[in-house]
Amino acid sequence: MRAFAINKICLKDLSFEQAIDATARGGFHGITPWYDDVSHLSPSEARRLIADSGLTVSGFCNCGLYALKGKDGRRAAIDEAKRNIEYAAELGASSIVTVVGGLLPASKSLDEARDFAFDCLAETLEFARTTPVTLALEALHPMYTPDWSVVTSLATANDWCDRLGAGIGLAVDSYHTWWDPSVYAEIEKAGKKGRIATYHISDWLVPTNHILLDRGMPGEGIIDLAEFDTKVQSAGYDGPIEVEIFSERLWKLDPDQFLADLMKRCQSTYSG
Amino acid sequence: MRAFAINKICLKDLSFEQAIDATARGGFHGITPWYDDVSHLSPSEARRLIADSGLTVSGFCNCGLYALKGKDGRRAAIDEAKRNIEYAAELGASSIVTVVGGLLPASKSLDEARDFAFDCLAETLEFARTTPVTLALEALHPMYTPDWSVVTSLATANDWCDRLGAGIGLAVDSYHTWWDPSVYAEIEKAGKKGRIATYHISDWLVPTNHILLDRGMPGEGIIDLAEFDTKVQSAGYDGPIEVEIFSERLWKLDPDQFLADLMKRCQSTYSG
Repeated sequence: MRAFAINKICLKDLSFEQAIDATARGGFHGITPWYDDVSHLSPSEARRLIADSGLTVSGFCNCGLYALKGKDGRRAAIDEAKRNIEYAAELGASSIVTVVGGLLPASKSLDEARDFAFDCLAETLEFARTTPVTLALEALHPMYTPDWSVVTSLATANDWCDRLGAGIGLAVDSYHTWWDPSVYAEIEKAGKKGRIATYHISDWLVPTNHILLDRGMPGEGIIDLAEFDTKVQSAGYDGPIEVEIFSERLWKLDPDQFLADLMKRCQSTYSG
Repeated sequence: MRAFAINKICLKDLSFEQAIDATARGGFHGITPWYDDVSHLSPSEARRLIADSGLTVSGFCNCGLYALKGKDGRRAAIDEAKRNIEYAAELGASSIVTVVGGLLPASKSLDEARDFAFDCLAETLEFARTTPVTLALEALHPMYTPDWSVVTSLATANDWCDRLGAGIGLAVDSYHTWWDPSVYAEIEKAGKKGRIATYHISDWLVPTNHILLDRGMPGEGIIDLAEFDTKVQSAGYDGPIEVEIFSERLWKLDPDQFLADLMKRCQSTYSG
């Protein structure tokens, strides 16, 4: 049996405490909180709550978004990344999702944005190496380039990891990368380097009614998630399958019913 | 001075006859109609109307979308492509925009979809070669993979052109390809092969409120259209710059005011 984890964003409107209870009741194995979910608790308090519920810490969200406040915001962005990495370490997360950010404010230069993000990431990595936490660099779908990430393919993410060395790996996400003709070759490459730090899944709906907030549960959309999973497994990844769904539609459902449906879908999709 | 053309979709709610009048009044050089815009006219009638207004035929839309009605719809899709190519030829269009289609109905296999599209395209090309019309293969943004195109980068489009030989080139579109780290290298490659058949522009809005119908005029969004244009020009393309904007917002404007604003934006963006 595969282990499934819940990214807290799936249960956006629940408190952290409610979310771990619901996740445990739903039969999931782990939970990945965001910093804002747990910032009212010390890492050791949050860690104890998760352990007491019988869950594991499947990851932590997030660090990066370096461009958001411009070049002058670089120091603050890196300091925030360090704070979150430190929290993740004390929480016992083995990796932290790292999303590098999009264009700089009032700039249209992708080259500038890429150089800035890479540079900030390298500095963040120096700090992360002093902790047990791996940076899980996430390639986002190209439609998020302006706002969230100039890294839009596993090829680029692998290349950045090659250039940066130890302490950084990948967050492989089906939603962001399924369309890419090179995705399976890049998953294989990442596997050979022992680099797949975490693995997110959600499905692409047709139609997609919102660019960010209309993702689907496994089987609701058109991604061949079973085939995708075969490639991730073949690459040697044996950690949990983390469900990360941004969805206005699903957030409105009763959490227990949502999680029950989700678990059924996970088991049927990932039975192979 | 660069020449600007209007893709008829910019003026969706106008008849073809109204659209050519407005486009000519707006100082544009050419117009690219869709088959449905002109199907009430013979190609020679449509051709005369365009010439009488002082415009040129900047292109024709479109052929492809082979997967839309499934494998059983293959013959009908190719026959429709041939009909549109024939119309384009008699209209005097030098190229026809070619969008290869997405996933087959009830299938999640990208490999199957890619093979099917390539095969249909090859058959279409055999026919196109008997006409003066070049197939302008358009790579669409990856977010359109399921519905419209499994070709999502100029790298793939160039590769398909390499494999298919004479009679096929590229429709380069800023909106679909700007995010791609390899876009400028691929434009250069296409230029060396004399392969850029047509050139579409529109801008990426932040936020983008609809996946298909929320594109922007030059300068409204975050694409560095001037830099993009430099690369297209350096690659040897010297045809018109065709504005192709799908936008619920802009379709509501007064057409003459919209075109006046658009022309101003085109001249200021592409003055270099």
